[in-house]
Amino acid sequence: MTQEELKATSIGKIVREDDYIAIRVFDKYWTGVHNLDKFSHLVVLWWLTENDNEEARNHLRANPPHVPEAEESGVFATRSSHRPTPIALSIVKLLSVDEERKHLILDQIDAFDQTPVVDIKPYMPTSDRVDEAKVAKWFENLKPRYTETNF
Amino acid sequence: MTQEELKATSIGKIVREDDYIAIRVFDKYWTGVHNLDKFSHLVVLWWLTENDNEEARNHLRANPPHVPEAEESGVFATRSSHRPTPIALSIVKLLSVDEERKHLILDQIDAFDQTPVVDIKPYMPTSDRVDEAKVAKWFENLKPRYTETNF
Repeated sequence: MTQEELKATSIGKIVREDDYIAIRVFDKYWTGVHNLDKFSHLVVLWWLTENDNEEARNHLRANPPHVPEAEESGVFATRSSHRPTPIALSIVKLLSVDEERKHLILDQIDAFDQTPVVDIKPYMPTSDRVDEAKVAKWFENLKPRYTETNF
Repeated sequence: MTQEELKATSIGKIVREDDYIAIRVFDKYWTGVHNLDKFSHLVVLWWLTENDNEEARNHLRANPPHVPEAEESGVFATRSSHRPTPIALSIVKLLSVDEERKHLILDQIDAFDQTPVVDIKPYMPTSDRVDEAKVAKWFENLKPRYTETNF
């Protein structure tokens, strides 16, 4: 199998200003957010530009970030920013939509200012929410962000 | 801002054979799945190869698939397969890992045989699960896949 060219398109970029966090959707793509305000949460796919280099893309083992007691794992078993396709996924809360500035205002996202955003999807509990997910033991005590339930 | 080249890498492909559904991870990347079996569910990012063409990538409004009563929406407010970056996200259950064939055996995925997989991440309730997500009214009655709760 030959490797096809799989090209991601930047449809916007992250704007961070102190406590303000938003996605500036480029003019051309703004029509694509119509009705997004009907959803409370989004799936944001963004590009790990800082790690888009040969070395990081071929770094296939990692220590899961922020968890010192974690076992070294394959990168696909971590959320490491070193991955063959340097893409990150964040589930975020959509606070509001600023039509004038073409900003989607978010509660949080772990991305730098100016980071390219390549896709936005509505968070759909029907396909995206898992109630009984098992994780590696070194992640079991992480504090949940959008759930009240203990697991 | 000039559009950088954001190149996704295929790290495996979907294998479908009757009821059998798996990701065949390419030999080079197999080391990257170490410890993935500690997780019950995965986030799979795969390429919508069938829709990787100029027309589909510039299709910015869509009728959400499978829901006839839905309002026409921007593609970012749908899970339409026509998107500027033709990437899809599926939350799936990892049934088992076949070390010999380098297969990750899944319960389901809505992708064709041979579809390129560009990234795999562990599903982490801490960041990925949302208990109180609001969706557009035309999606409210969809049957949930991995939750028992009514919402």
